[in-house]
Amino acid sequence: MQLQLATWPEVETYLSQSQGLIIPIGSTEQHGPTGLIGTDAICAEAIAQGVGEATQALVAPTINVGMALHHTAFPGSISLRPSTLMLVVRDYVTSLTKAGFTQFFFINGHGGNMATLKAAFSETYAVLADLNLPQAERVQCRLANWFMCGSVYRLAKELYGDQEGSHATPSEVALTQYLYPTAIKQAELSIEVASGHPIYGAADFRWRYPDGRMGSNPALATPEHGRQFYELAVKELSGQYLEFLAKAAS
Amino acid sequence: MQLQLATWPEVETYLSQSQGLIIPIGSTEQHGPTGLIGTDAICAEAIAQGVGEATQALVAPTINVGMALHHTAFPGSISLRPSTLMLVVRDYVTSLTKAGFTQFFFINGHGGNMATLKAAFSETYAVLADLNLPQAERVQCRLANWFMCGSVYRLAKELYGDQEGSHATPSEVALTQYLYPTAIKQAELSIEVASGHPIYGAADFRWRYPDGRMGSNPALATPEHGRQFYELAVKELSGQYLEFLAKAAS
Amino acid sequence: MQLQLATWPEVETYLSQSQGLIIPIGSTEQHGPTGLIGTDAICAEAIAQGVGEATQALVAPTINVGMALHHTAFPGSISLRPSTLMLVVRDYVTSLTKAGFTQFFFINGHGGNMATLKAAFSETYAVLADLNLPQAERVQCRLANWFMCGSVYRLAKELYGDQEGSHATPSEVALTQYLYPTAIKQAELSIEVASGHPIYGAADFRWRYPDGRMGSNPALATPEHGRQFYELAVKELSGQYLEFLAKAAS
Amino acid sequence: MQLQLATWPEVETYLSQSQGLIIPIGSTEQHGPTGLIGTDAICAEAIAQGVGEATQALVAPTINVGMALHHTAFPGSISLRPSTLMLVVRDYVTSLTKAGFTQFFFINGHGGNMATLKAAFSETYAVLADLNLPQAERVQCRLANWFMCGSVYRLAKELYGDQEGSHATPSEVALTQYLYPTAIKQAELSIEVASGHPIYGAADFRWRYPDGRMGSNPALATPEHGRQFYELAVKELSGQYLEFLAKAAS
Amino acid sequence: MQLQLATWPEVETYLSQSQGLIIPIGSTEQHGPTGLIGTDAICAEAIAQGVGEATQALVAPTINVGMALHHTAFPGSISLRPSTLMLVVRDYVTSLTKAGFTQFFFINGHGGNMATLKAAFSETYAVLADLNLPQAERVQCRLANWFMCGSVYRLAKELYGDQEGSHATPSEVALTQYLYPTAIKQAELSIEVASGHPIYGAADFRWRYPDGRMGSNPALATPEHGRQFYELAVKELSGQYLEFLAKAAS
Amino acid sequence: MQLQLATWPEVETYLSQSQGLIIPIGSTEQHGPTGLIGTDAICAEAIAQGVGEATQALVAPTINVGMALHHTAFPGSISLRPSTLMLVVRDYVTSLTKAGFTQFFFINGHGGNMATLKAAFSETYAVLADLNLPQAERVQCRLANWFMCGSVYRLAKELYGDQEGSHATPSEVALTQYLYPTAIKQAELSIEVASGHPIYGAADFRWRYPDGRMGSNPALATPEHGRQFYELAVKELSGQYLEFLAKAAS
Repeated sequence: MQLQLATWPEVETYLSQSQGLIIPIGSTEQHGPTGLIGTDAICAEAIAQGVGEATQALVAPTINVGMALHHTAFPGSISLRPSTLMLVVRDYVTSLTKAGFTQFFFINGHGGNMATLKAAFSETYAVLADLNLPQAERVQCRLANWFMCGSVYRLAKELYGDQEGSHATPSEVALTQYLYPTAIKQAELSIEVASGHPIYGAADFRWRYPDGRMGSNPALATPEHGRQFYELAVKELSGQYLEFLAKAAS
Repeated sequence: MQLQLATWPEVETYLSQSQGLIIPIGSTEQHGPTGLIGTDAICAEAIAQGVGEATQALVAPTINVGMALHHTAFPGSISLRPSTLMLVVRDYVTSLTKAGFTQFFFINGHGGNMATLKAAFSETYAVLADLNLPQAERVQCRLANWFMCGSVYRLAKELYGDQEGSHATPSEVALTQYLYPTAIKQAELSIEVASGHPIYGAADFRWRYPDGRMGSNPALATPEHGRQFYELAVKELSGQYLEFLAKAAS
Repeated sequence: MQLQLATWPEVETYLSQSQGLIIPIGSTEQHGPTGLIGTDAICAEAIAQGVGEATQALVAPTINVGMALHHTAFPGSISLRPSTLMLVVRDYVTSLTKAGFTQFFFINGHGGNMATLKAAFSETYAVLADLNLPQAERVQCRLANWFMCGSVYRLAKELYGDQEGSHATPSEVALTQYLYPTAIKQAELSIEVASGHPIYGAADFRWRYPDGRMGSNPALATPEHGRQFYELAVKELSGQYLEFLAKAAS
Repeated sequence: MQLQLATWPEVETYLSQSQGLIIPIGSTEQHGPTGLIGTDAICAEAIAQGVGEATQALVAPTINVGMALHHTAFPGSISLRPSTLMLVVRDYVTSLTKAGFTQFFFINGHGGNMATLKAAFSETYAVLADLNLPQAERVQCRLANWFMCGSVYRLAKELYGDQEGSHATPSEVALTQYLYPTAIKQAELSIEVASGHPIYGAADFRWRYPDGRMGSNPALATPEHGRQFYELAVKELSGQYLEFLAKAAS
Repeated sequence: MQLQLATWPEVETYLSQSQGLIIPIGSTEQHGPTGLIGTDAICAEAIAQGVGEATQALVAPTINVGMALHHTAFPGSISLRPSTLMLVVRDYVTSLTKAGFTQFFFINGHGGNMATLKAAFSETYAVLADLNLPQAERVQCRLANWFMCGSVYRLAKELYGDQEGSHATPSEVALTQYLYPTAIKQAELSIEVASGHPIYGAADFRWRYPDGRMGSNPALATPEHGRQFYELAVKELSGQYLEFLAKAAS
Repeated sequence: MQLQLATWPEVETYLSQSQGLIIPIGSTEQHGPTGLIGTDAICAEAIAQGVGEATQALVAPTINVGMALHHTAFPGSISLRPSTLMLVVRDYVTSLTKAGFTQFFFINGHGGNMATLKAAFSETYAVLADLNLPQAERVQCRLANWFMCGSVYRLAKELYGDQEGSHATPSEVALTQYLYPTAIKQAELSIEVASGHPIYGAADFRWRYPDGRMGSNPALATPEHGRQFYELAVKELSGQYLEFLAKAAS
């Protein structure tokens, strides 16, 4: 169930049975000449809703803008600073902990969010510990990156080999094609594609990766591949979520 | 066009013709026994997309969680602190200004966001002024509350009279019914409904407004009303957006 | 009684009878060619002291500098950033709540403070809720703008019609003339005066409003008008303050 | 001239002749059983205006609330956190530097402000250096504590010897008696008065100094003493201010 | 060369030849019953100095306290919040970039620092981009974890197998034994040792890992092992540092 | 005992006997043509360890970088902003207070840290007061500047007279020569040395003090002097530390 489509009495009932919540988080950033700017948010949201359905879990509204500072030299990218995103996470978790939620399962669509989310979780535990709420000590945040699921990784390797790359990948593009078949984009992609450069600031990133791709060939993506990635990710993350709840209850 | 469904070269092309962007902002908060927790985000997003279509404007992803601290004693509500929301707005506008956007039109679904957004705009102009970007001085943020459109207000008055109230109103509930007809909720609503108390902290709010409504009777809402509100709001805000762009260009 | 002229044992005695405090807040900003830079602080302070006398309320020292970023392209203007003013309000209210005050009545002289003050109140309630002070849940902040009193508004309309404008108005200038008759300034005022432009950043504001006035003709002001505005505002806000206390006690 | 009683064109004219500004800063805190809560703000403001008249300098509105956290266990005390006061100073100096002021002379009435002000000056120079304003490198902030003037110190020693103490001193009380002869307070003062304890947190302070005095006997104060302190402080600080300007110009 | 043992003219000379700087960062946190609280700082500092000697690089003073919030339920642990550590990194890099350094090589001794450091680097690049320093775009921060060196990892596997664990490991304990042979501690270690629990807040961590070890058997450590780890880490990180400089110059 | 060389059970034992901790804090900043950049950290650390040995006190790891913004126009200087250093102190003291420490004795090697540390102590007491820890009210932070010890001051006066100056002084240089005899630097020192200018921003400081010295002649320093300074400082501060503990216990 989507939290956005629930009423507060329905949430109250839910809390009497579960203290878990799924929070999708994406990014709004360039994904190469053919990838959608919303790729990471779109993928995280769809998979989160799939997991929610599979596990009867409540799904929070998507954090659409994440930490994408290194992409901001490409137009259309929006980024929170890490320090801002940490406060956003703190505010989400604090609001919800006061209501009784304790298990926060972040389904993440963007590699660039990972470090900031982990730092945010640490900061948030410390903030909660000072609130003297009985449930604060039980709060657990878990980072679940759909693109790092073993099953997803293996399929991407099988379908694309080295052309999967690490940004604007055919796997994530395929997933958006499956979800938004009317928004499949065409553009000429150079055969040579930059790869292997570490990520520093935004200007450096655009200089190193002039069309925004990092070693990927998104032209290999198909909507049917997207369906397969979707189903693998939903299945694997549903298992992770249930295990997360079970372990907390034990 | 939704920014999330565009590519960066498409945004680059758009920027050569327009520097305007529509940013929907809602809230994730209780809306009484029958209103959806996502009401404010759902309404703002739908209307923003309608305005985007009507005016050929790009629409940013929705800020789903706003300033709803006073609702956080009801389960399911999530709020940013005002100071956090101000940083979020600063980060959005700063990222986008660097890419060339200068006209930011916030379509807002939540009265509780208004003060913080205005404060955020002031803070952001000052931050931008220190960046020495040539376009920084031209940046303009506009707050457009769909529920304060004259045409919307008049229809609500006509349909509901005093039972419109000021939170969990039939007009906003009607709009969500139109948009999500499968998520129409039923619950018994007391005839007596609290109203007239100023808003202070979360505990006080719940004590004053025990079922979350503020003087409203959302049972009067119908999906057909929702359609009318939607069309009025899209039409009126489309006009405001075009005027906003025109004035900046003059 | 002014807090500044009291001793701590006198405040202790006061608190055994009332938990209310009046806090004047103004601004330090250009008020056109003839208006005093301190207009908003001067008016708020004088009216607050009048209300304090009329209601036996304690009056805190004036917050002389508020949120006036849009005026800072005119020399002599000083502004806090919204985020700073929010911390100032948080610190005032937190200090005083610990001592037992719970009803904070801000008499405000500057429209530009309104959004930031409302955001600050929300933020402060949340901060207080985390302190576990028994009285924290009872804290109430009220914003009372003297220039928005019905009686003040009607007199201004009657005396000045459309020439009241919205900044460097004859009504506020009149009030400073009444309070500081030796500081009545003369300068040539163009008959044409800018009006109707929305407020964005400081440079834009000065460009739109080159002499600082917004649609006003302060040459109409007289000290005698000022006396009338003063008396109306004191009377109306005294009533509001007493009602604020009474409602909290009920 | 008081900035609050000037117009912006008058400030513009002033700036063509001087870039100096006097900023009084006090505190709002307990001053023992007979001292006024506003003592430090009242003294700083009066002396600042005296210095302003003697040197033709513009005097900013008083910062009435300073860093008095250790006094906040006594009712009526208000304090900014050091981090807040630092932002206030940053905002004052930044606003004014943009207009052309470069010499900021803080006349301070409260020992507890000294460390925070010095830290604020350092922070502010760094903030200004990042603004790329031509005048930013020339900005100088000076802390001038009236109670540490040599002439003031000698008179206090001569009049009161050891009974001057270090808080709620007869010298500062005398000065407020001179300025507000109708607000001279009477209360029984124990002969024994605590002294010599270092200052830590607020609860500890009240425990160590139960009536708020630190080694002082304010019963020795007279309005006539106050007049002498006032004149000595104005004279000495006027000299310091002129020297401050002269050195900057050289 | 240690920066602490250089003079500023020596640094000026150094900068004419290299813009690289090594910054050791550790942590101050419990390392089980026999591990030193300073283990992570001690290891990072010693290896950094070794790398500095091997590569003629300047080595900054050690950041002794890092992000160890989850260890703070054990006495003696000190932690910065992630948000604080991010500001520390911002301040280091900003100070040094202004002087001309552009290649910052952080030799890290603590896994818990990794997320915060990566977030800090992103934040810092954004801050630098707003400074308009010519060299700001060239700044590169690199995170080099000695314990993740391939050669180190292989030796630990070979010597300890699964008993290496993931905190208070025999490899890091061995390194401190090599460096501080007089501070080798003895304590009874239970054969059963907790492992496999994810890390959440401090109270939870102590409850899950009652003696502080995470799956490790530090009794296997010897000073001679420590010497081998030291030499492997210095060699491998020296290579990484030189490659980092070379790539930036290319 | 150094905290870094202790285990957590050893700290637990220590806390059952003492709640005191010594925290050395220095700076990383230019010290003239011949002084070491680490002078202030080196001196504070060595003296702190001497005091720790003399009094059986635990010594925390050194805060190597302090508030030295005014030195940052000289290469090699690193500074925290005052606001950052305040957070660092808050985090140290908060972490340690939770474990049971209450007496924090900061041995400081840098005049520029003093104001920020005092402000940080005030801020920290307020933060602790909101945590509801029983021991929070007993927390005491003491600032102990080795260079302001009476015995140190007298010896410096006797050995160097006016040539002691106030930065890059022969006394501190002597102390580093005693501690690091292999790092004694030679450089030509002009006989004329700037002195007497107040400290403002970094660019101004370098312009006023072109070689970094402030009125000092570090060529007078000898390692043997350094030994004497070391012994005097250790002795005097050991007495201060014991008195600090004793007073808290009384």
